[in-house]
Amino acid sequence: MKAVQVVGYHRPLELTEVPAPEVAGPHDVVVKIGGAGVCRTDLHILEGQWAEKSQVALPYTIGHENAGWVAAVGSAVTNVAEGDTVIVHPLITCGLCRACRSGDDVHCEASAFPGIDTAGGYAEYLRTSARSVVKLDPSLQPADVAALADAGLTAYHAAAKASRRLGPRDTCVVIGAGGLGHIGIQVLQALTPARLVVLDRNPDALKLALSIGADDGVVADGSHVDEVLSLTGGAGAEVVLDFVGEGGSTAEGLRMTRRAGDYHVVGYGENVDVPTIDLVSSEVNVIGNLVGSYNDLQDLMALAARGLVTLHTTRYALDDFQSAIDDLDAGRVRGRAILVP
Amino acid sequence: MKAVQVVGYHRPLELTEVPAPEVAGPHDVVVKIGGAGVCRTDLHILEGQWAEKSQVALPYTIGHENAGWVAAVGSAVTNVAEGDTVIVHPLITCGLCRACRSGDDVHCEASAFPGIDTAGGYAEYLRTSARSVVKLDPSLQPADVAALADAGLTAYHAAAKASRRLGPRDTCVVIGAGGLGHIGIQVLQALTPARLVVLDRNPDALKLALSIGADDGVVADGSHVDEVLSLTGGAGAEVVLDFVGEGGSTAEGLRMTRRAGDYHVVGYGENVDVPTIDLVSSEVNVIGNLVGSYNDLQDLMALAARGLVTLHTTRYALDDFQSAIDDLDAGRVRGRAILVP
Amino acid sequence: MKAVQVVGYHRPLELTEVPAPEVAGPHDVVVKIGGAGVCRTDLHILEGQWAEKSQVALPYTIGHENAGWVAAVGSAVTNVAEGDTVIVHPLITCGLCRACRSGDDVHCEASAFPGIDTAGGYAEYLRTSARSVVKLDPSLQPADVAALADAGLTAYHAAAKASRRLGPRDTCVVIGAGGLGHIGIQVLQALTPARLVVLDRNPDALKLALSIGADDGVVADGSHVDEVLSLTGGAGAEVVLDFVGEGGSTAEGLRMTRRAGDYHVVGYGENVDVPTIDLVSSEVNVIGNLVGSYNDLQDLMALAARGLVTLHTTRYALDDFQSAIDDLDAGRVRGRAILVP
Amino acid sequence: MKAVQVVGYHRPLELTEVPAPEVAGPHDVVVKIGGAGVCRTDLHILEGQWAEKSQVALPYTIGHENAGWVAAVGSAVTNVAEGDTVIVHPLITCGLCRACRSGDDVHCEASAFPGIDTAGGYAEYLRTSARSVVKLDPSLQPADVAALADAGLTAYHAAAKASRRLGPRDTCVVIGAGGLGHIGIQVLQALTPARLVVLDRNPDALKLALSIGADDGVVADGSHVDEVLSLTGGAGAEVVLDFVGEGGSTAEGLRMTRRAGDYHVVGYGENVDVPTIDLVSSEVNVIGNLVGSYNDLQDLMALAARGLVTLHTTRYALDDFQSAIDDLDAGRVRGRAILVP
Repeated sequence: MKAVQVVGYHRPLELTEVPAPEVAGPHDVVVKIGGAGVCRTDLHILEGQWAEKSQVALPYTIGHENAGWVAAVGSAVTNVAEGDTVIVHPLITCGLCRACRSGDDVHCEASAFPGIDTAGGYAEYLRTSARSVVKLDPSLQPADVAALADAGLTAYHAAAKASRRLGPRDTCVVIGAGGLGHIGIQVLQALTPARLVVLDRNPDALKLALSIGADDGVVADGSHVDEVLSLTGGAGAEVVLDFVGEGGSTAEGLRMTRRAGDYHVVGYGENVDVPTIDLVSSEVNVIGNLVGSYNDLQDLMALAARGLVTLHTTRYALDDFQSAIDDLDAGRVRGRAILVP
Repeated sequence: MKAVQVVGYHRPLELTEVPAPEVAGPHDVVVKIGGAGVCRTDLHILEGQWAEKSQVALPYTIGHENAGWVAAVGSAVTNVAEGDTVIVHPLITCGLCRACRSGDDVHCEASAFPGIDTAGGYAEYLRTSARSVVKLDPSLQPADVAALADAGLTAYHAAAKASRRLGPRDTCVVIGAGGLGHIGIQVLQALTPARLVVLDRNPDALKLALSIGADDGVVADGSHVDEVLSLTGGAGAEVVLDFVGEGGSTAEGLRMTRRAGDYHVVGYGENVDVPTIDLVSSEVNVIGNLVGSYNDLQDLMALAARGLVTLHTTRYALDDFQSAIDDLDAGRVRGRAILVP
Repeated sequence: MKAVQVVGYHRPLELTEVPAPEVAGPHDVVVKIGGAGVCRTDLHILEGQWAEKSQVALPYTIGHENAGWVAAVGSAVTNVAEGDTVIVHPLITCGLCRACRSGDDVHCEASAFPGIDTAGGYAEYLRTSARSVVKLDPSLQPADVAALADAGLTAYHAAAKASRRLGPRDTCVVIGAGGLGHIGIQVLQALTPARLVVLDRNPDALKLALSIGADDGVVADGSHVDEVLSLTGGAGAEVVLDFVGEGGSTAEGLRMTRRAGDYHVVGYGENVDVPTIDLVSSEVNVIGNLVGSYNDLQDLMALAARGLVTLHTTRYALDDFQSAIDDLDAGRVRGRAILVP
Repeated sequence: MKAVQVVGYHRPLELTEVPAPEVAGPHDVVVKIGGAGVCRTDLHILEGQWAEKSQVALPYTIGHENAGWVAAVGSAVTNVAEGDTVIVHPLITCGLCRACRSGDDVHCEASAFPGIDTAGGYAEYLRTSARSVVKLDPSLQPADVAALADAGLTAYHAAAKASRRLGPRDTCVVIGAGGLGHIGIQVLQALTPARLVVLDRNPDALKLALSIGADDGVVADGSHVDEVLSLTGGAGAEVVLDFVGEGGSTAEGLRMTRRAGDYHVVGYGENVDVPTIDLVSSEVNVIGNLVGSYNDLQDLMALAARGLVTLHTTRYALDDFQSAIDDLDAGRVRGRAILVP
């Protein structure tokens, strides 16, 4: 089959012919790829940023945001069958450790990560596990939802976790209305009655945010912290979801967080650097957020099936992977770039 | 009545004669002081560290850890009567704001803080509110429990909040077995089945910790982080309660926190300074902790009444306040110093 | 002032002249009535059904669903001021018992219930407490929201409690799309992403339900339990909210509840009669629901201010109270009947 | 190997020779039995009470409370190895359905139940799944803990679920200090600071209860409901755990439950029959309880390893199974009867 592989760091990806994966273990599921998201992490992989962490042997196939159709299943697979449309959770998890037994599988003690440390989805077929596939509603197409498998799932997880404490009198500030924030806003709108205040430097991103459920849009032009404080009677918001995590957003996020509130870190880059006395006197919490669990992905797909979460995508043929990479690198992609074999 | 007052910053306290407080409003409660804790915060007040924040007019009576007997009550007071033994919550709260209506009264929008911004308990009588007094079990003496009103209540609050997620397979690390840690350990022992690992520089403090419920004591001698990791299979603890908050304890505390775990800030001094990528990849939470609520104080007194939380105290006559201050400043007090009028 | 009073059981109400209430205690609030809901409970009061329970002395003014404008406040009232538009929580609560201190004030150990055991709101003025008044958004008119003070608040409370466990993959069955169910559906739509399946005997009520957020409407014609099971893959719903509570709805509700699900009792009349073995083998919970707390009323008013919860009302002049009573008794009121002084 | 089998209903069990189970699937685990609990359910099986429900084909080996040593493992088993001491969760679950993925595996959509619907543990070997075995601390012996696998696990589950809402000021009433109640009391003592009030008809059972953590023992002699109400200031307990479920205990349990409290059904026999108006006006919850999950069994074993939960047992050789059955039937077993091959 065709596959796009990393053949060396600081070198272009290469399209090559490799053997298609086959079912080897009882829980294996082979998926015919219908769409593979092109993610900024893929650029970082090529720059070698993940080399030491992943310890992956080159060459290997990248692509960690995958959806498609089940092509073959192992002997113990009961949740999907050949022909089913599926989205693929980014991790292959063990199912036996404490985290897996508690529904918290992203903290699995023995997981694999296709596209990062083993063969991924820039290819015609991908091998994953029965524990990683979510059967899709017939209304959903793989190429439309593939990018929800990782970027969207991260936004869902943070928004769903945040929403547990949000009621009708609460305010939730969303910092960053880009790829993740865009999903986060839709999820918050579906899950919580809280007022949503969205911050972004880009007025167009705010317009979009207002059209999908934000109650207020604030241009991040320097006076935005004061404006949010003003919108919340000087007290700040019960929850702040920071999809940026750099350029000063952490300090600003904490300033906009109300006493006893939650400041959620989703985007990353800079340090959170806060005096302990401030955490004590305000009793604010700093909440870390990783990608969502398998249950989160099931929930997100339930929202997608009802049209409550949608994503703009730009499709590229698998052979045309270099254009997708180049467009992403140059900021020319509207929404998410998807490779379609 | 006699009262010990701040007459100027960087000057000694003075014992003087002032009018005894009287019931003025319907919810007022006047308490005859049976014990007033001498706290490190009192030293800081004398150094002027609270002057700007509290805006208190000098002279005024300090003392914010108070217990005694009800001497008089306002017309609307129904929860205590003259003669009742009571401990006094450090805050006088409004009862009408959203925080007060939700049991989260320490975040009251209009509170007063006797001993900090209004007349406190280094005196024969104190005026507080019906919302601030907890009626004590007859087995409890004011001078024995007074120090639980603030220091103990802070430890209770953090330990109780932490314990909500602690089960039989979990480990809780307590950093610091001093005044607060000492209470925290007893509370954790009463509220949770988790294994308790206690860290302190002082081997004697660890011996005491082991005698009141700690499962393991680790001397903080430089190899303690590794030792805790070793005790937890390399993974760290589900919860770390940091009663120190300085001297590097925050970075160490975060290193000892397991993936998806909670690092609780109680003690303060230095900054928490952590890369956002670490919070994201480990999904760790940094949890702020303020003093406990009125409900927390009720709960703590229920534990104290059953002998599950005890405190070593050294008593001083009110007239001998200067000895208590000097002993505390010089590190000569074993347990907590209590002024007894 | 004018007031409509119960002068004897099994006798008509009488309009009479009584002294207007005045501020007597520090937390008293006198409200000029802008709307008073006429409730089926008022009919029951006249039939003497509440006589023994309430021990109220006749004559007295009825009416427990009230909204209006603040006319006067006691010396300790800080949350509202003269002229404010307010809705009135049905209970006057003590603020000092454990339930009140925990935000669970409907379980106050010393509450009064205007309209039931003391003077209510079928009058020009009502005396209540600072703890019972919720300041309204200027967009809301007393006569429009008065009926939310009790009937609506009950529906809000149950729906909000139920929604805590409802996620995107869950189903919530609502039994009864009448007065309470109508509010419940709007609240569930605002608070949860769950699929809402509504049952009613009246097809018109189902049409209305579908127009305000229900996903499916099922006519309760005898095959409805099977139809709900069919809609949920044979397993039943995670949550069933029973606003009827009679005519067999409890047994049907339990049959429609999924393993480990919650069956909420809101409406009442018959007994829940279920074998313990069924509760054990299915691990189903039967959840009681009383009227909502003060916090619930604040939350409900936040939804109302955003237009997320609305109620159809029919207004009557206070002098015309008998028409309202007669119309309610005869089933001629569309939505809720409101007396306007 | 030797196995004790049901060869017909209303006929004695028979000891026979059958082929030992072997690893067939990748997640299979074969356990050499070290102890198999003899349970009242086994008597009911012989009486044919489970025949229709289980649809098991005779003859088959019974025994659903099993512990021992791992004898062989399938290719995908990573959590235990040959020679490990293990206790066996009563269910074999699929690992792929929503309940399994959420840690709630007792509600698995495709489970098997060895000893009930497939070969159980009255034998030398048992086949189960990697998902069902909990590795034991070396201090624990299979014959000592086998009875915790089902009876003990049921008590743990209910007590742990109940304890989530129990704080230092709360009271928990335990109805029945027999086999399950005995475990429940130890679990409550370990997990919660609440006051434990235990009811039993047998004063000796109460003595034992007081020795393992109960705060008060009340003889169920007719005045026990009043006595519990008196112990709780007339209000009842926040939580009632009913390990009996017959002979009027459900009505009594509900009478002893405080407003907004939880009445837990664990034992079964009679119906819960309660007016909806009572559930509404008191806002009480009736909570069903099934056997515990795999996580619950892990937690229970963690308590057992620390000596916080112990069980009195009487051992019988496997060949002597009939004596065990006869003794149980005649009420001659102290604690639990355990077959040891």
